[in-house]
Amino acid sequence: MERHHFEEELQILKQRLLHMGALCEERVHRAVAALMQRRLDAAEKIAAGDSDVNELQIEIDDRCLKLLALQQPMATDLRLITSAMKINSDLERIGDQAVNIAQNVVKLLPYPPVKPQIDIPRMAEIAQGMTHDSLDAFVRKDVGLARSVLARDDQVDAFKDQVFRVLLTYMMADPGTIERCLALILISRNLERIADHATNIAEDVIFLVEAKDVRHHHVEEKVT
Amino acid sequence: MERHHFEEELQILKQRLLHMGALCEERVHRAVAALMQRRLDAAEKIAAGDSDVNELQIEIDDRCLKLLALQQPMATDLRLITSAMKINSDLERIGDQAVNIAQNVVKLLPYPPVKPQIDIPRMAEIAQGMTHDSLDAFVRKDVGLARSVLARDDQVDAFKDQVFRVLLTYMMADPGTIERCLALILISRNLERIADHATNIAEDVIFLVEAKDVRHHHVEEKVT
Repeated sequence: MERHHFEEELQILKQRLLHMGALCEERVHRAVAALMQRRLDAAEKIAAGDSDVNELQIEIDDRCLKLLALQQPMATDLRLITSAMKINSDLERIGDQAVNIAQNVVKLLPYPPVKPQIDIPRMAEIAQGMTHDSLDAFVRKDVGLARSVLARDDQVDAFKDQVFRVLLTYMMADPGTIERCLALILISRNLERIADHATNIAEDVIFLVEAKDVRHHHVEEKVT
Repeated sequence: MERHHFEEELQILKQRLLHMGALCEERVHRAVAALMQRRLDAAEKIAAGDSDVNELQIEIDDRCLKLLALQQPMATDLRLITSAMKINSDLERIGDQAVNIAQNVVKLLPYPPVKPQIDIPRMAEIAQGMTHDSLDAFVRKDVGLARSVLARDDQVDAFKDQVFRVLLTYMMADPGTIERCLALILISRNLERIADHATNIAEDVIFLVEAKDVRHHHVEEKVT
C-alpha cells in the first residue's frame, strides 16, 4: 500500500469512527428523550437492539486489522490504529448502554412519574458531550479537549450520587415508588458508564498524542 | 527480531495476561468473601484500589505495541496481539468491578444481614469461572471452552434477575431494608458486568481462532 493510499485509508477510518460515534450519541439522546417525553414506542424501538452499531463495529475492526496487516505501520500510525480499535469497543459499549437505558425506560413508563426533580437530563447531556468531544479530540489530536473530557467525569459522578441520595430518601418515605426509583437509579448508572467510556476514549487520545499513559492517574477509583 | 525470539516474547505476553487474570479473579474472590464473612477490613483493603492491576495493564499494552512495531506480524500473530490488547482492557475492567463490589460491601456492612437467601456467592463463582476459562481458552486457543463461557452468561443474567426480584419484594415489605437491598442489587450488577467482560474475552478467542466475528450473534441484548 502506498503512503498516499494509506493516508486515505486512515481518513476513511476516522470518518467511520465519527459516524459510529454519531450513531451511538443519537441512540443515547433518543433513549433519554423517550424517558422525558414518556414515549413507550420510542423506548421499545431502541430497546429492541442496535444492529447498525454492531455491524459498523465489525467493519471498523476489520479496517484496523487490514491496515495493520497491509501497511505494517510504525510509531504514531501504529498507535493511531490500535487506539481506533479500543475507541471502537468503547463506542459499541456506549451503544449498548443506550439499549439498556431504553429497556429501563420501558419498565418505568407504566408507573406515574416520580415527584422529585432529578438531574437525569443534565447528566445525559454531559455524558453525550463527553462522548462527542472525546471523538472530536481523537480526530483532531486535541489533547486539551481530551483533558476537558476527563475533568467532566467527576461532574457525572456527582450527579449520580445526588440522584441516588434523592431517590433513596423518596422511596424510603413512600415504598410504593420503589420500582420506579430503582429504574431511575439504574438509568443514572447507565449514564455514568457512558461517561466512563468517553473517559477511556479521552485517555486513549492523550496516550496517542503524547505517547504517555494517563490511565489510572487522573481520578480516584469510583463506586458503581 | 528473530522468529525464535518473537515466539518467546509471545509466550511471555501470554504468561503476563494469565497473571493479570489471576490477580483480577483473586480480587473478585476476596471482595465477595469480605461480603460473606462480613469483614470490613478486608473490604476496605480492596476498595482502596488496584494499583498492581493497573500497572500490569500498562506493561501488557506496552508489550503488545512493541511486538506490533518490531515484528510487524501477519495474520494469526497480528490477531493474537490485537486480541491480547482487548483482553487486557477487559481484565482491567474486571479488576475495577472487584473494587466496586468492595466499595458496596463497605456501605452494606454497617447494617444487619438481610434475611432472604440470595445467590450472590453462586453468581460470583460462575463469573470467576467464566473469567478463568475465557483466559485459559485464549492461551490454549480452545474454541470449545470459549463457547462454554458464552453459554454461562445466560445463567449469570438469570441470577441477576432473580436477585433483583427477591430483593425488590423484600424491600417493599420492609422499607427499613432499602439501603442494604440496594447495595446487594448493585453488587449483583457488578458481578454481571464481570461475566460480560469474560464473554467479550471468549468472543475474542473465537474470532482469533476461527477468524470469524461472533460478536452480536450469540445472545439477545440484555438490560443492565
